[in-house]
Formats: sequence, C-alpha cells, structure tokens
Amino acid sequence: MTIAGSADQKLSRRLRLGMVGGGRGAFIGAVHRIAARIDDRWELVAGALSSDPERAKASGEDLLLKPDRIYGDFNEMARRERRLKDGIDAVVIVTPNHAHAAAARAFLKAGIHVICDKPLTTTRREADQLAKLAHESGLVFAVTHNYTGYPLVRQARAMVEAGELGAIRVVQVEYAQDWLATRMEETGSKQAEWRTDPARSGPAGAVGDIGTHAFNLAEFIVGDEVASLSAELHTFVEGRRLDDNAHMMLRFASGAKGMLWCSQVAAGLENGLKIRVYGEKAGLEWHQENPNYLTFSPLGEPPRIIRRNGYGANEVSRAASRIPGGHPEGYLEGFAQLYTDIAEQIAARIEKREPNPFSLQVPTVDQGVRGVRFIDAAVRSSQRKAAWVDL
Amino acid sequence: MTIAGSADQKLSRRLRLGMVGGGRGAFIGAVHRIAARIDDRWELVAGALSSDPERAKASGEDLLLKPDRIYGDFNEMARRERRLKDGIDAVVIVTPNHAHAAAARAFLKAGIHVICDKPLTTTRREADQLAKLAHESGLVFAVTHNYTGYPLVRQARAMVEAGELGAIRVVQVEYAQDWLATRMEETGSKQAEWRTDPARSGPAGAVGDIGTHAFNLAEFIVGDEVASLSAELHTFVEGRRLDDNAHMMLRFASGAKGMLWCSQVAAGLENGLKIRVYGEKAGLEWHQENPNYLTFSPLGEPPRIIRRNGYGANEVSRAASRIPGGHPEGYLEGFAQLYTDIAEQIAARIEKREPNPFSLQVPTVDQGVRGVRFIDAAVRSSQRKAAWVDL
Amino acid sequence: MTIAGSADQKLSRRLRLGMVGGGRGAFIGAVHRIAARIDDRWELVAGALSSDPERAKASGEDLLLKPDRIYGDFNEMARRERRLKDGIDAVVIVTPNHAHAAAARAFLKAGIHVICDKPLTTTRREADQLAKLAHESGLVFAVTHNYTGYPLVRQARAMVEAGELGAIRVVQVEYAQDWLATRMEETGSKQAEWRTDPARSGPAGAVGDIGTHAFNLAEFIVGDEVASLSAELHTFVEGRRLDDNAHMMLRFASGAKGMLWCSQVAAGLENGLKIRVYGEKAGLEWHQENPNYLTFSPLGEPPRIIRRNGYGANEVSRAASRIPGGHPEGYLEGFAQLYTDIAEQIAARIEKREPNPFSLQVPTVDQGVRGVRFIDAAVRSSQRKAAWVDL
Amino acid sequence: MTIAGSADQKLSRRLRLGMVGGGRGAFIGAVHRIAARIDDRWELVAGALSSDPERAKASGEDLLLKPDRIYGDFNEMARRERRLKDGIDAVVIVTPNHAHAAAARAFLKAGIHVICDKPLTTTRREADQLAKLAHESGLVFAVTHNYTGYPLVRQARAMVEAGELGAIRVVQVEYAQDWLATRMEETGSKQAEWRTDPARSGPAGAVGDIGTHAFNLAEFIVGDEVASLSAELHTFVEGRRLDDNAHMMLRFASGAKGMLWCSQVAAGLENGLKIRVYGEKAGLEWHQENPNYLTFSPLGEPPRIIRRNGYGANEVSRAASRIPGGHPEGYLEGFAQLYTDIAEQIAARIEKREPNPFSLQVPTVDQGVRGVRFIDAAVRSSQRKAAWVDL
Repeated sequence: MTIAGSADQKLSRRLRLGMVGGGRGAFIGAVHRIAARIDDRWELVAGALSSDPERAKASGEDLLLKPDRIYGDFNEMARRERRLKDGIDAVVIVTPNHAHAAAARAFLKAGIHVICDKPLTTTRREADQLAKLAHESGLVFAVTHNYTGYPLVRQARAMVEAGELGAIRVVQVEYAQDWLATRMEETGSKQAEWRTDPARSGPAGAVGDIGTHAFNLAEFIVGDEVASLSAELHTFVEGRRLDDNAHMMLRFASGAKGMLWCSQVAAGLENGLKIRVYGEKAGLEWHQENPNYLTFSPLGEPPRIIRRNGYGANEVSRAASRIPGGHPEGYLEGFAQLYTDIAEQIAARIEKREPNPFSLQVPTVDQGVRGVRFIDAAVRSSQRKAAWVDL
Repeated sequence: MTIAGSADQKLSRRLRLGMVGGGRGAFIGAVHRIAARIDDRWELVAGALSSDPERAKASGEDLLLKPDRIYGDFNEMARRERRLKDGIDAVVIVTPNHAHAAAARAFLKAGIHVICDKPLTTTRREADQLAKLAHESGLVFAVTHNYTGYPLVRQARAMVEAGELGAIRVVQVEYAQDWLATRMEETGSKQAEWRTDPARSGPAGAVGDIGTHAFNLAEFIVGDEVASLSAELHTFVEGRRLDDNAHMMLRFASGAKGMLWCSQVAAGLENGLKIRVYGEKAGLEWHQENPNYLTFSPLGEPPRIIRRNGYGANEVSRAASRIPGGHPEGYLEGFAQLYTDIAEQIAARIEKREPNPFSLQVPTVDQGVRGVRFIDAAVRSSQRKAAWVDL
Repeated sequence: MTIAGSADQKLSRRLRLGMVGGGRGAFIGAVHRIAARIDDRWELVAGALSSDPERAKASGEDLLLKPDRIYGDFNEMARRERRLKDGIDAVVIVTPNHAHAAAARAFLKAGIHVICDKPLTTTRREADQLAKLAHESGLVFAVTHNYTGYPLVRQARAMVEAGELGAIRVVQVEYAQDWLATRMEETGSKQAEWRTDPARSGPAGAVGDIGTHAFNLAEFIVGDEVASLSAELHTFVEGRRLDDNAHMMLRFASGAKGMLWCSQVAAGLENGLKIRVYGEKAGLEWHQENPNYLTFSPLGEPPRIIRRNGYGANEVSRAASRIPGGHPEGYLEGFAQLYTDIAEQIAARIEKREPNPFSLQVPTVDQGVRGVRFIDAAVRSSQRKAAWVDL
Repeated sequence: MTIAGSADQKLSRRLRLGMVGGGRGAFIGAVHRIAARIDDRWELVAGALSSDPERAKASGEDLLLKPDRIYGDFNEMARRERRLKDGIDAVVIVTPNHAHAAAARAFLKAGIHVICDKPLTTTRREADQLAKLAHESGLVFAVTHNYTGYPLVRQARAMVEAGELGAIRVVQVEYAQDWLATRMEETGSKQAEWRTDPARSGPAGAVGDIGTHAFNLAEFIVGDEVASLSAELHTFVEGRRLDDNAHMMLRFASGAKGMLWCSQVAAGLENGLKIRVYGEKAGLEWHQENPNYLTFSPLGEPPRIIRRNGYGANEVSRAASRIPGGHPEGYLEGFAQLYTDIAEQIAARIEKREPNPFSLQVPTVDQGVRGVRFIDAAVRSSQRKAAWVDL
C-alpha cells in the first residue's frame, strides 16, 4: 500500500497563499487552511482576514502570519503582494458572498491567481463581468465547489463520460440540512446571520448556500448542462428573509430529467448531499456523508459497492486518494484535492509545462457563473409559480 | 415473546373470500391469496379467475376450489354467490385496472363486501360513481394500498397525528423501480403488457402503477391532503405509450411542500418506495425495502432507530405485528394486515359490534378516488407544462 | 413478475397437520402455524396443544379445530390419528425441549411423519436413539432449523458448494439478543421461564436456544462439519441457572477456522444472527435481520449486493422465493419454506415419485443430532477451561 | 458552525518534528506527515528517512528538508539535533517493528520526546526496558495507536467511564482485512515483505500488525485490562512464515468476556476494525470504516445514532473534531488528533502549565508495553493449544 495520487508528486517549493476573509469566528476559512495544508503544496503567508482591522490583526496573529503580511484591507494586500519578491502565488476569497467580486477583481488585476468560494457573486451581471475579466487575465480562477474533489465523485463523472451508464435519463440530487430549522440567525450565530441576510448572501438562502453545490455536483457528474428548471422556493421559519427550502424539476440539455431538493429545515439531516444518476445501462448512487462508497448498478447485475482506492476504483479516483481503501478519507481530503490540483495548475505555469490532466477537474469561474445563473433562474421561476425558466 | 396484534384475536369461523382475476400468470392475485391466509381469517372458496373461461377453470383447479365455485364470469359469480347459504362474504378484484369498476359494481349490487386493487378505476367519473355506489351500499369497500399495512407506516402516521413532528413542512416521497428500463412489454411479460397499455392501464403508466402508492402513502402518513401538484411525466423507453418516469412538486392543504418521484426505469432499483417527512420538531424516514426500521430524528437529539415490535414501537405498530422484533416481517405480512383488518370490520358487522379501531386504517373507496384524482391531475399538469393543478 | 418457486406447484389435496405443544401463551407454535399456511400446502386439523388439558381444549377451540381432534395428550393423539381415514400426515412438536423425544417417538411409532423443533433432545443418548428410530421408520423427520429456509442462505450454501469462494478459510457466526439481559424469568414470561430452566431446556441456555441455530447455519452454508470446539460459557445475570453468553472457537474438518458467539444479554440486539464466510477466492456475508441481501465479495472485485429474487440470485434462492425482489420476504416466509419442502417430500412419497431436489435441504434428524452434540461439546469444553472437545 | 476542539487553540510557534523511517515507498510515514500537518502544530524539519543513505537523501529532498537536516543515520540525527538551537522537539519513529527500540532509546537519551509506531518492540524484554527508560527520562513517549484519536472512540470511552453502559459484560472486537489473502510478499510489495518477515515484524503477523490495534481499542474504550486470553493463530497462505488469521477469547480483569478476531485473509474486507461493547444497561457499536457514527443502545430504548459533532456528541468527542457533523472526518483526522494532543502535552511543558486534559488520552509507552504483552501471550497460547495465558 502506498500513498497514491498527485499528492505524492515532488515540488521544488511550496506555493504561497493569501487569504481574504476567514478570520476569527468564521467556519469555511479554517476549512480552507486545513485543506491547503494536507498535501503540503501550500503555505499561508498573508491575509486580510476580516473587514474589521482589529479582528484582522488578531486573526493573523493566531495563524502565526508575519506582522507585515497581515492586512486590514484586501486592496492593500493585492497592491503590496504583487510587488513582493516572495509575494503570494494565489489568494483565496472566503468572505460572505456579496464581497467576492470586488476582492476577486483586485487580485486578478494584480496578476494573482484566484481561488473563490461559491456562489461566485450575488448577481448575474457581476458574475459575467468577473468571468470576462478572469478569462482576459489568463490567470487560474478556481471556484471551490469542493464536493468535486471527492475521489468517488470524480470516478462517477468518469464512468458517465466513458458511457458506462449509457444515455442518462434521470438525475436525483438533494442537499438537505437542519441547522436552520429554528431561528438560528437570532442566536448570535455569525454563520446563520449572513446566510439569511439578502444584503450579504444575495437573492437566495438555501438555494445559494447549498443548492448551488447540488446543482454543480449534478452538472459535474453528468457532464451535461441543465437547460431549464421549474422551482418552488419557500421560507418555513417565520421572519426569515430568504428561502430555507426549495424543490425543483430540471431539464438537461441532453433530454435527461432531474429533481433537486435543498433544505435547511429537514430535521435530523446534517449535511445530506446525495446524488443518484440513472442511465440506460446502469445507475450510480453517492452520499456525501459516507463518501468512500459508490454504488454502481449495471442493469441486470447485482449492485456493486465501489470503495475509494479499493477494487474497482478507477485511475481518476485513485489519483485523488491519499490512503488505502478502508482508511476513510473525508470532507477535508476532498477539499484538499482542489488545493492540490490548483497548485499543480499553477506549478505547471511556473515550470512552463502541461499540468496533470486530472488537475483540470477543478471548477472554474465558468462553473461559478453557472451557479449564479442557477440561483437567478430558481428565484425567477419561483416568483412565476414555478414556470420553466432557462438558465 | 408472544404473537402480538389483532392476528391473535379469536373468530368463530373463517370468512369466505371470492376472487376476480388473479389466475395463472398473474402476480398480484397470488400475493392476495397468501396475504389472506397468513392470519387465518379467510378461506378462498370461489373465483372468476380469468376472463378466459379455460384459464379460469384451470386456475380454479390449481387452487383446489370446488368445481361449482369456479366461475367463468364475474357477473355470474356475483349473482350465484349472493344466493348461496355459504356464499362469499367478500370479493377481491385483482384484474387489470380498466376492469375494476364493472366488477366492483356487480358485487356491490349483490350486497357483497368488496376489496379492490388500485388504482380504483381509469377515469375520475367512474371513480366518483363507484364511490357513490359504495357509500350508498353501506358495504365495506377496501382499496389495497397495501403499504399502509406495514406496522411502521402506521406508527409513522400515529406519530405525526400525535404531534411528535410538530407542523409538517416537507414531504419527500419516491417509488422507483427498474423493471421497465427496457421494452419488457415486447418480451411476452403479461405484467408489462397491460401496465403499458392505455386501454387496460388507464391514462398513466408509472404514475398509475406505483405513483399512486407513493401518493397514498404520503397522504396516509401525513394525515393531510395534497391540494395541488405540478408534474412532468416522461416516457424514456422508445415506443412505450405511457409514462415510465414522473417528477412532481406537491402542495399540501396545510402548507407543507413535497416532492414525488416515480420511475420504472431507474437502473438498479427494485421496489424503492421511500418516504421522508420533516416537521418543525422532528423528522421521520422509512424505506419499504427494509421495512422493519423507522428512523425518528427529534430536532436536537440523535436519530433513533425504531424497530418493528421493538423498543419504542407504539401500540399501533405492535397491533399490526405478528412476531418479535428482529424476526423480520415483510411485504406479505404488511399485505396480510389489510386482510386481517378487513376481516375484523366485516366480522364486527356480522357480530353487531364495534370493530377494533386499528382495523379502520385500511384505505377505502375514498382513498381510491384520491388516487384516481392524483393520476388525473398529474396527467393534466404534465400536458400543461407542469402547471399547478388542483386535485 | 410471477410467483416463483415450489410454492406454486400444484397439489391434489392439502396435507393434514397435527401439533403437539404451541397452545395459548406459546410463541413458536403460532409461528409454525403461520408458516404452514403461507404456501397453502397444509391444513391444521388436530392438536395436543398443551400438557394442561384445560389449556389444550381452549387452545384448540381458538384454532377452530374440530372437538374430536383436540387432544389432551400426545399419546392419545398418535394412537387415534393413525387409525383415522383422514388422520394427520405429519405432526409438529413445539413443546419445551425436554418433551421433544417422547412425543417424537410416539408419532414415529404411529407411522406419522415428524417435524420437530430444535434442539432435538436434551441429551446425546436420547438424540442418538431418536435418530436410530427415525432412520428405521423410513419416515420424514424434519428439524426446524428454520434459518435454512431463507432463500439467500440457500444461495450462500450453493455458492460455497459450487466453489465460488474456493477453499473456506474462516467462518464468523454469531447469534446475539438482549431479551434476557435482565431477570426476565421472574417476570412471568413463560418463554423465559422454561428457557432458563435446566429441567426443561437441557444443559445449556443460550447455547441450546440460539447457539444451535448459529452452529447449524454455519455447517449448512459451509457444507462441512465442525470437528472440535473450544468454548467458554458464562452466566451474567445473577441467579440464572443456565448460560446466557458463550464464546467459542471452531475447527472445521476441512481445516477452516471459525468463531461462534451467542448471547442473550447483548443490549441493543434483537435477533442478531449473522454469518460471514471467507474463502480463498471470495467472501460472503448475511444478516438474518435484513435477510433479503447477501454480500458477495470476490477477491479483487467490488462487493456485490445480491438481492433475493433479484439480479444474481441463483435458481436455488429463486425456488425458495415467493415474490419479486424489492418486496421483502422475512422470517415467516423462510419458515414457510421448510413446511413447503416437507410437504413436497411427503407428497412425493404419497405420489410415489422423486421429490423436487431443492426440498431435500430441510434439516433432518441428523442435523438435530449434530445440534445436540454441539451443545454437549460446548458444555464439556467450558467445564474444562475451554479445552478443545471433539463433536 | 465553528471549527471545534483543540485544533483551534493558539500556539506561539509550531513544534519541530523529526522522522526516522518513512522514506520513499513507505506507507505509514506519509500518513504521519499529513497527520502532523492537519492542525498546524508541527513542522517537519529533520529526518533519517531510510536506513539506505541514498534513499534517505532522496526522500528528504522530496520533503523539502534542508540538506543539513537530512540524516543517513538516526544516531547521528539524535546527537546533532540535541545540540541545535532549533533542534527538533520530538521525533517520530516509523521504521519496521524490529528497529523501533534502538531508535527510541537514542532519542530518549538525547532528551527528545518520542512518538513511536506500534507495536512498540518485538520482544517483551525490550518493551519493558524501553518503558523503564522512558519513565526515567520524564519525556513524552507516545505510541500511535491512532484509532484512539477518532472522536467517537473517545466518546465511547467516556460513556463507558461515566457508567452509561453499566458494568461491562461482553466485548466483541475485530480487525479484518484481505490484502494478504494471496502471497503479496512475493509481488515486490515492501509493506507485505517486512510484515510477513519474523526478523522485521517480530513473532506475530496479523496479530502484531492489526491485532494489537484491536486489543488496544478494546482496552481503551472499556477502561479495563485483559487479564488472560486463549488464542489460535493460523497461517492460511502457504509458505507464509507468520500468522495471517487469529481467533481469541478474552477475559477482562473486571469479569467481562470478549472475543477478538484479526485476519488479513478475509476476502472482501478492507480495514474492518469494529468494536461492540455490551454492558448491563446499554450497548455501543463503532466501525472504523464509517467512523462518524456511534450506535448507542440503552436497554429498553431504540438505538440512537450519535454522529460526530452532532446532537448527542459529548465534549470529549467535540474536542477531537474539526468540522461540523455531516462533513465526514476520517482516518487522517483521527491520526492528526494524536499529533495535536502530543503537541499540547509538549507545549504545556515548554510553557510550564497543565496540558488540556483531553490531550492525555494519547497512548503512551505503557500501552505500547500492553500491546507487546498481548502479542506474546497470543503466540504462547496458540503454541499451547489455546490454553489460557495471562498477560
């Protein structure tokens, strides 16, 4: 048994990472930092960790950043880092949604690669503009739809692409939680506060926070675009300003049909992202909460349990695995895979070579744009009695 | 450990059952016969088992019916059995859908209690007429939505009714199979032939065959009616004349929201009826293929696995159980429960007493009408681009 | 989809069954009666249902037996039934263990086929004598190790026999419950009383009650005999006179090694009979509480989930199934299969033909003797500090 | 949702780690490095990564070690690092088993804290001597029985300690794999070679490699010592020199009884470490391959599924968690917890304060000694026909 995958590749130096947002009290910032460390491709060297300068400073000290690399403002950070000899190679933006676009623009303009949390922006216009800028820059622009980093999600995608399921007919995807089943936003939870605040979260609640992940996962695995959707968004918790549950029907460009359910009020569910894909020849099922297993059911044969890095795991999933089957990898390793792949893309540019093709599976600004269109379409459909809306 | 439930009640004689349909080559007829035997309340004594007289005779002989109780025609059977001293107490109708109504009318008019397979009829008009006739007759009229006979389905219903989930918010129900993923109807399968034939099956395929069960299960457990739905029906298998997949969004009268998926082309799934119900205070999950477990998740507590006839099983589910927890009961026992309950209702009339209240959970002609309205609404909605249609 | 298996075969009349034991308050008697009814091969016509004449009479009336077929004594029943023109074809003995032998002898001597609950007897000597008598009689003598009636248990056995696992190396079998975790025998439970009473249960408690089932299942599936064992029996509940937990190491004749655990004090377990078999080429896993699934893991391939009557189910398991995959069958159907097979064996004798070979899988008096030897060896090993004892 | 546990505590600098063994081609070395990085308490700064100087150098370069911190020999490393101003705070020893003792001694003598892989040594004498030296040194000496770092393993231990299960009666533990089901040691696998070589692995194969983990886990959770055992070790793969399967019966000091099975030939199993503990009042079940769930079954209540960092998770398991429930943590995070706890212990000494008490759960040299005694007892018992041997 050996450590498999690109995590094992040699590198001549660690890449330098800066972070915008993610200071004390944040959740996802810490996840990004662990993810960046796991495969040892990155070192965090700079940060504008909060829009509150006091908190930014304290947070930077917590992380053992050098004092001169702790910034109170992302614009300052972008300006200065571009001039440093050992300036950051890439920045990761983990602020609330409404602040993504401005920060991303600043670093793109500074010639620094960007890693941005989802959803990309809070409006379609902003998303399209940012995509244009990113493409023109020629820089790496990754959007952390992290569930695409799970080995067996990649295996699923490769199996669909290879035709092992035949033409896809039905896609059932859901992402349900219960942490907003009560008025959490009034308990002092920063997470709940901004996620239920249209000014910071954008036009959608659950749809933007987790629905986008479900949508992205479906398009990622199926390798097809959702052409139109019919959605009913609803707010169950009284006084909440954004949706906390949404039901949708999906039509894929290829003719496949789908359903998407996202909820933050489903009592008993923690982080229930699940996808099932049914084709003419076989079906697939994967659950994020138990991510080391992929059920593959060829029509006419008993279902097979494909285990991460186990028998039947293909080279795509093996390349995204660290340790042998039966030694469970989880959320952080799936997230780490994105960081490792992004590092590979950037290293390839530095070293003027082609990147490992597996590394190109990381969602880009284009998938970010898809996510924003999805939110926009869902909100508009719901406003129009679940009329079909094109993406 | 003792045998629990109404199956243990004493009776002074077995009730006499007649069957229409269910001859050689049929599936559900044999299921009904086993179900009727399990708790020893019934004996099958008469049958018009096929519309083909030869097949009817041979089928009756297979079942050891007396020659003079084997009929070639249900009208003849109804007429003669009503006059016999030991004539049948009840008839069960297990023909293809289009033939339910005429047979049911004949026995109602003969004063014989009716057990009818679902869907009740193939049109709303016929359903309404039949319901009227049934109500006027004062006879027992049961519709075999057999999944309501599962002990933990009844436990779920009782828990919702008792408020253990609080106000219901979300209902996710699905019923997916794969046996029609290919053109089975051209392989000589009688089952596939009539189920995909509009003349015998009615206006819907998967929606009528299994969608109605999912719909019934949702209304049964939630104790609420679906007010309107938005549906997209689709036929994936080329040349098939009825839908083999349907996606729906549901609005319940109470304000709860739901989704319903039914499919007969979901590769890898056998008989995947599942329901999840989420309320303000707790969630519930039940899977038909593993029916001895009910997951109950009170908000803020670890999920609990309630096992049939085990710790936490309530009196409702215990009354529908035969053997101790850990000794799995299945589909046939769930089906048997309906027969036992119907026997109890009829015996109570014979004995001029109140029936055991648990026995009144059996779906009646009214639930049969709901099922037909559901099919009708789904078909109409789909024809109108998934517009919301009231039931 | 059709009803599969021998349950569908035609018969010219139902066989007549008598029962010894199984009156009011009994558990397993009612299970036998349901099992005998399910496939419609038997009718219960006579009984000596209790050693208490009052209870015997009342129990017979509960079951709608004719007054002259209700006996207060099994000897009288054997004597009279042998002379009746429509006397019973077979008797089933469901008394506490100590009473099996005398009843079995009485019916064998009357020329009546015998179905006997397990363990066969409470001593080796009695078991050997009974086996001798049974063999001399030429009658059918079945011992209801009912778990051998589960379709996928039979599939497992056939797969081992066909060499699909290669030479067997390791067998892990367990049967654990919790219903005797407290002093149930002092709560008025008849079941607990006699099962913890050496006079009625024999020299072992859990080992005799459930350990024998585990042992039988292992030998049945592996198709090999346990040559010797090392056992530690223990009584955890204070004041109890028989073991309530036992650990054993097993050596099979072929060289395979095994472990057996049985317990009635394993808090949280209901009826946890599980077996895992590992061979040179593949492994198998089956759980009684979820009996419609068999996990088959060929070395070097993903595990496959074989479902009852589903893809990958072989003809052996299909022949023991009634309804399509996904419609769960359970404990009662597994038990029913024994009755159906015993009926087939007896019917073949009546009709002077060869029985369906699948029907010959029912455990006989010889497996009954094996069970008694197992109990005897376990008790002796435990008395000798877990020394290895030959069976 | 916030990042929980000690991973969040501030530190003034990262601790410096050296590694002995773990060079190219090794498995567990890379695991240790990831584990050390995850919570950002450590930086790897020195290594004697192979006994082959060429490989040592190349491996050090792969890891971006400074040239003067890459050593060809652990003695040299110990001598030099003790004198460096920024010398290592601790060393981790990940060589094959036979080489643990000498390396550990060298670093203890150099005053450097030691982290040692299991089993501690290959003989009892060596283990006892090393423990004496470690105790005299006053240094931290951790043994990486990494499964004790899983949050829910710690929760289980705390629940037993708090009496939630009552007096423990039965412990069923197993650790089964299939990777040595064939002659892997002849395929060029370094891992398989040394693990089946008595000169490097010690007197036991599966028992030493994985049986020790199972044994440690049982003692860790139950909080009790195994007093004696009866074992049968066996080698199934022809030509193999060490056991590849072992069955054991255990007697705990408190009177609890247990079974332990370890195997490396169980076709279909990957890394099947499972433990079940049954007490007077409740039972617990945990599976390493699905480590985010702990089943807790109080007698008389439905089983509850306790999820990592979810409802019902106690402060002990929360302190060992990084991310919210439903975001699975796995093997690497469990391993990381040991590194985080060891860092806390060392930091507390540097900062002259009491360590966080949760950090003291890391297995020490004493648990290492227990593991060696276990191996020794198992081997001797097996040689004596599974006689009971005291530990």
